[in-house]
Amino acid sequence: MPLPPLGDYLETLRTVTPLVHCMTNYVAMNSTANVLLATGASPAMLHAPEEVAEFTAISAGLSINIGTISSHWADAMLTATATASQHAIPWVLDPVAVGATRYRQTLCAKLLAAQPSVIRGNASEILALKGLTSQGRGVDSTAATEQAEEAAVALAQQHGCIVAMTGKTDWVTDGTQHYRISGGHPLMPRVTTLGCGLSALVTAFVATHHETTLAATAAALGCFAIAGERAGNAAQGPGSFQVALLDALYQLTPNDLTTHTQWEAIHGA
Amino acid sequence: MPLPPLGDYLETLRTVTPLVHCMTNYVAMNSTANVLLATGASPAMLHAPEEVAEFTAISAGLSINIGTISSHWADAMLTATATASQHAIPWVLDPVAVGATRYRQTLCAKLLAAQPSVIRGNASEILALKGLTSQGRGVDSTAATEQAEEAAVALAQQHGCIVAMTGKTDWVTDGTQHYRISGGHPLMPRVTTLGCGLSALVTAFVATHHETTLAATAAALGCFAIAGERAGNAAQGPGSFQVALLDALYQLTPNDLTTHTQWEAIHGA
Amino acid sequence: MPLPPLGDYLETLRTVTPLVHCMTNYVAMNSTANVLLATGASPAMLHAPEEVAEFTAISAGLSINIGTISSHWADAMLTATATASQHAIPWVLDPVAVGATRYRQTLCAKLLAAQPSVIRGNASEILALKGLTSQGRGVDSTAATEQAEEAAVALAQQHGCIVAMTGKTDWVTDGTQHYRISGGHPLMPRVTTLGCGLSALVTAFVATHHETTLAATAAALGCFAIAGERAGNAAQGPGSFQVALLDALYQLTPNDLTTHTQWEAIHGA
Repeated sequence: MPLPPLGDYLETLRTVTPLVHCMTNYVAMNSTANVLLATGASPAMLHAPEEVAEFTAISAGLSINIGTISSHWADAMLTATATASQHAIPWVLDPVAVGATRYRQTLCAKLLAAQPSVIRGNASEILALKGLTSQGRGVDSTAATEQAEEAAVALAQQHGCIVAMTGKTDWVTDGTQHYRISGGHPLMPRVTTLGCGLSALVTAFVATHHETTLAATAAALGCFAIAGERAGNAAQGPGSFQVALLDALYQLTPNDLTTHTQWEAIHGA
Repeated sequence: MPLPPLGDYLETLRTVTPLVHCMTNYVAMNSTANVLLATGASPAMLHAPEEVAEFTAISAGLSINIGTISSHWADAMLTATATASQHAIPWVLDPVAVGATRYRQTLCAKLLAAQPSVIRGNASEILALKGLTSQGRGVDSTAATEQAEEAAVALAQQHGCIVAMTGKTDWVTDGTQHYRISGGHPLMPRVTTLGCGLSALVTAFVATHHETTLAATAAALGCFAIAGERAGNAAQGPGSFQVALLDALYQLTPNDLTTHTQWEAIHGA
Repeated sequence: MPLPPLGDYLETLRTVTPLVHCMTNYVAMNSTANVLLATGASPAMLHAPEEVAEFTAISAGLSINIGTISSHWADAMLTATATASQHAIPWVLDPVAVGATRYRQTLCAKLLAAQPSVIRGNASEILALKGLTSQGRGVDSTAATEQAEEAAVALAQQHGCIVAMTGKTDWVTDGTQHYRISGGHPLMPRVTTLGCGLSALVTAFVATHHETTLAATAAALGCFAIAGERAGNAAQGPGSFQVALLDALYQLTPNDLTTHTQWEAIHGA
């Protein structure tokens, strides 16, 4: 099934300017707020247990990122995700480095139980997340990419959510329909917290499009794919890339997004 | 009464390079430090209860911003503001999103009791802050801007401080004299933490000019109004705006500030 | 003794892309991650007591910076440095503002006991650190620079580590051999957290060169000296300097580093 015109999603986002409650890592806070503002959403960063439920309840979407997690933050995230579920507010999980420590694995298992609308991670993170709730098959003969795609589909089916697996090319699935999105630039892995910012942007898109979460997620990926490519072409290195990316997100038009996003539906995954 | 030549304030600031103790939010820390350094002040960010009083006491000014507040930070801020009062060190309150949650309202009531030298916020924040200590009138027929100006004047009178209310145009008052400052650029709301950085810059100016806090605050607003306008004219979007703003603050001369700040005294407010 | 070709160290770093566990201050997290990524290393920022030992053990190097320290972070840093020592993983201490408060002095005494591989600080910090473990001589007739150089050498001897004292020119010593490295640009002190980023870059270099820590540290200083000079020549102020520095670190070649680093061996210090 073809994706709907993705530019429509950007147009709505800019009209609505959704309030996105971000509970993200210290490294990513500034850059994430700027990604949201540049594209057209309204970020708010706060995490105190005394206020987190009250604030999530008035937000359009909630973005959870465990990059620099600690116990107080983890507790507040679980409060926020419970609030989001209760009020049918979409929320996005970015399981940063979930494979690296047992602490992250335990926390992500709890967050998955709170039913995210979307999971956004790289291939390693998606594989590690899948491993939390299934028998591992160990290393086998299937290629790493193929394995990760299978894991993404299985995760999406198991948790009834969208999975966006990003990297050199992106893959997004609701467990039944799958799309590949291409674009971006080789400089992107040389700049910190781009993935974190993308997760927050996914939140902004799904916050304004509850009924079409898969396409809304694809629209967010399309923004980064196109803006990333343009920024890379304008940049001399990772410093000027960052600057150019925010400019490109700001300059991106709905028509650009509809006509320039390189996507393809994947069959038989 | 006309404002004194604002460039004199910048000249003094650059000679003194005041040490500004910043207790600000995680999103704003880096950009705030860079705003202070670019303009000519010396930032220090620290918040541990074990050291906060010792450090405030050797600072020229204290900047308090509740953006990503939590209980340990709130306690340390109250210690720091008490120390500042005790040593007659000027301090500035930035009541980020005070209207959003009861937790912020309770904390800001305590901070107001510690007698800030200056309050710097947007119109919503000034209105919310005023509401903490007065009977609300509810929504009435006065225009929002007019209502916010009245709230700013009342807050200034009630707490014996300067109130700087910033937005498309800025308004600064000591409760008796009021000035409007114009400038800036439409890109400014598309970049995160500019207001936070401005609050810290107000701190740097008042830290070096205890006797003329109103004019010193106006000088800080003038810096952002002029540098913001120049940065906006040079920028292609919010990414390049941020870069250009720091460059413009660095390049701003005292003569620029005196001759290019667009201000007017407001009568009968 | 002449330094070996410094470009070899950069070449190895880029081949190995060492995983650097950073426990640094909130102000510096984003810029530090970007310095490491631009140069060719792989940063990870995390600090929870539940995972810190597990993660340090799989890292190539550990970077400790006390800029925005508080008690939970301090405890986690001591766990991490103990883990690093146990696994012979090199770690670098950046004693930010150690002279400013007793709290910092007490913490740094504990961190020194955990035996850093390298200490990277400015002259005031090196002097303050030296003062923790020796009888102070008070202010005397020796010049400040000379005094700081003596302190650097004494610290290196006392703790069996490298000391890198950076400023207008840099000085690096293992207690026996001393080198001065020149370069950089006057804009550098007008940008926040450059020293913090440099400490992390030192970590990345020593993480890949355990046997030649002195030369590896010099290579990191050389990167900043050259890239800083190039960035300064391209910049209009501190905003564009930051951008240009990341680009310059990215563009720096091993051959550049070998042929353009301005260093001299110091005799009789």
